[in-house]
Amino acid sequence: MPNLEDTARLIEARYRDGTGASDVCNEVLEGLLSHRTVRAYLPDPVPPGVLTTIIAAAQSAPTSSNLQTWSVIAVEDAARRARLADLSNAQAHISEAPLFLVWLADLSRLETIGRDRQTRLEGLEFLESLLLGVIDAALAAQNAVLALESIGLGTCYIGAIRNKPLEVAGELGLPPNVFAVFGMTVGTPDPARPADIKPRLPQKVVLHHEQYGAQPSQAVLDRYDEALISFEREQGMAPDRWTDKVMSRVKSPQSLTGRDVLRQALNTLGFPLR
Amino acid sequence: MPNLEDTARLIEARYRDGTGASDVCNEVLEGLLSHRTVRAYLPDPVPPGVLTTIIAAAQSAPTSSNLQTWSVIAVEDAARRARLADLSNAQAHISEAPLFLVWLADLSRLETIGRDRQTRLEGLEFLESLLLGVIDAALAAQNAVLALESIGLGTCYIGAIRNKPLEVAGELGLPPNVFAVFGMTVGTPDPARPADIKPRLPQKVVLHHEQYGAQPSQAVLDRYDEALISFEREQGMAPDRWTDKVMSRVKSPQSLTGRDVLRQALNTLGFPLR
Repeated sequence: MPNLEDTARLIEARYRDGTGASDVCNEVLEGLLSHRTVRAYLPDPVPPGVLTTIIAAAQSAPTSSNLQTWSVIAVEDAARRARLADLSNAQAHISEAPLFLVWLADLSRLETIGRDRQTRLEGLEFLESLLLGVIDAALAAQNAVLALESIGLGTCYIGAIRNKPLEVAGELGLPPNVFAVFGMTVGTPDPARPADIKPRLPQKVVLHHEQYGAQPSQAVLDRYDEALISFEREQGMAPDRWTDKVMSRVKSPQSLTGRDVLRQALNTLGFPLR
Repeated sequence: MPNLEDTARLIEARYRDGTGASDVCNEVLEGLLSHRTVRAYLPDPVPPGVLTTIIAAAQSAPTSSNLQTWSVIAVEDAARRARLADLSNAQAHISEAPLFLVWLADLSRLETIGRDRQTRLEGLEFLESLLLGVIDAALAAQNAVLALESIGLGTCYIGAIRNKPLEVAGELGLPPNVFAVFGMTVGTPDPARPADIKPRLPQKVVLHHEQYGAQPSQAVLDRYDEALISFEREQGMAPDRWTDKVMSRVKSPQSLTGRDVLRQALNTLGFPLR
């Protein structure tokens, strides 16, 4: 059974700023606070019975107005995983992990229901409906992450699936009105290449009360840069200031690795985004 | 300790189609599968120490490239909650629940870092960057939901916060490049008005293998319509076919309850959505 000290330790690992403390503890909180991204996997396949329970957990997530505007594709075929890795910035763990889940914003189910009843569902043509699908997919996927971690499996979200949305749609046979929001590698973490808890910005930076507060001071950002550099050194990664890294990630259209044309690609995939 | 039979029962409650079974069980899976939306609350406040742990759980969620493009505002002031309820289709539980969390897609933090360094971060101007923030906010929020449920609190996502984005931004003092993605009521569920597990579409409808499969048959949709009508009758709600309900929810610009102008509103809030 987790205790308050364990929980406080996990919170301290998340912030590294001496604020770790908790009034509550349980197995779920321990699971949530222990999250780490896994990019190194053993080849052992994920048993089919496990997938059933994980997807039931995903479908247990809230969905806007119960519209259920998401779907997921489980890709196990090694050749298809390799092709999807190529389309996603050649991330090796997509080929390495035995299961690749592609989470979809899916308006095609509703569109089909309308079409079968000779009704144009014009509301689906708006940006709002894309957001519905994206949010539904994200809530479901995060439930799956927690379910998978609870049974000892690891995951990594792959936003790079949005680098080449049309090619991905072709590879996965997506009908119109369906968009691959992100991928997710799934498998048994390789114990020889473990990942640790990554520190985040101090809680006071993201949590506001009543109204939006001030932006973080330079001193706060400096301390976070240092915490992240310590983490990267411990993990054998190239140390890099967070502030530098995030700036280079969003500095130009080119730094979006293809996603600067996402709006046009979505139009082509059947989302007018009115 | 949960056992396989409990887990199977929760899965059966989720689908009501005789497929409930599971090869795995634990406290986390039980929490995930037990989710229900709470719209009836006791007035008891949420202790401050609890909020700290819940937000630590939220920050433990994955975030794209560690950009952390989200924030959250905790609204406890009753008058502000009442005003936000008015802006969100007058949903009574926003006024009733002691805590209202507003989850934000937040590009302003990165934009400020760039500005302080005399750098225009042009990548933030693209639709892709809005999606980054929306997905980050959704993953964090879903972690918070599970953390809250694990300590006996209930939640309800409020997508209607998107009905009037400019007024909501004014009420919450949002800077440019920040968008309220959804609200969330939080509080102790009123035991006199309990909610049950809502059935979802059969798993085979949302889970595809290798490539996107067929749309659900009319027979499958009919069975789901019946399952949902049974649930609604049990809950004392007006019974309504799912297929009818979803069609009316997205049939026209007007049925989006204001969100048909979301794209223009986002432009005004500082998201060019290139």
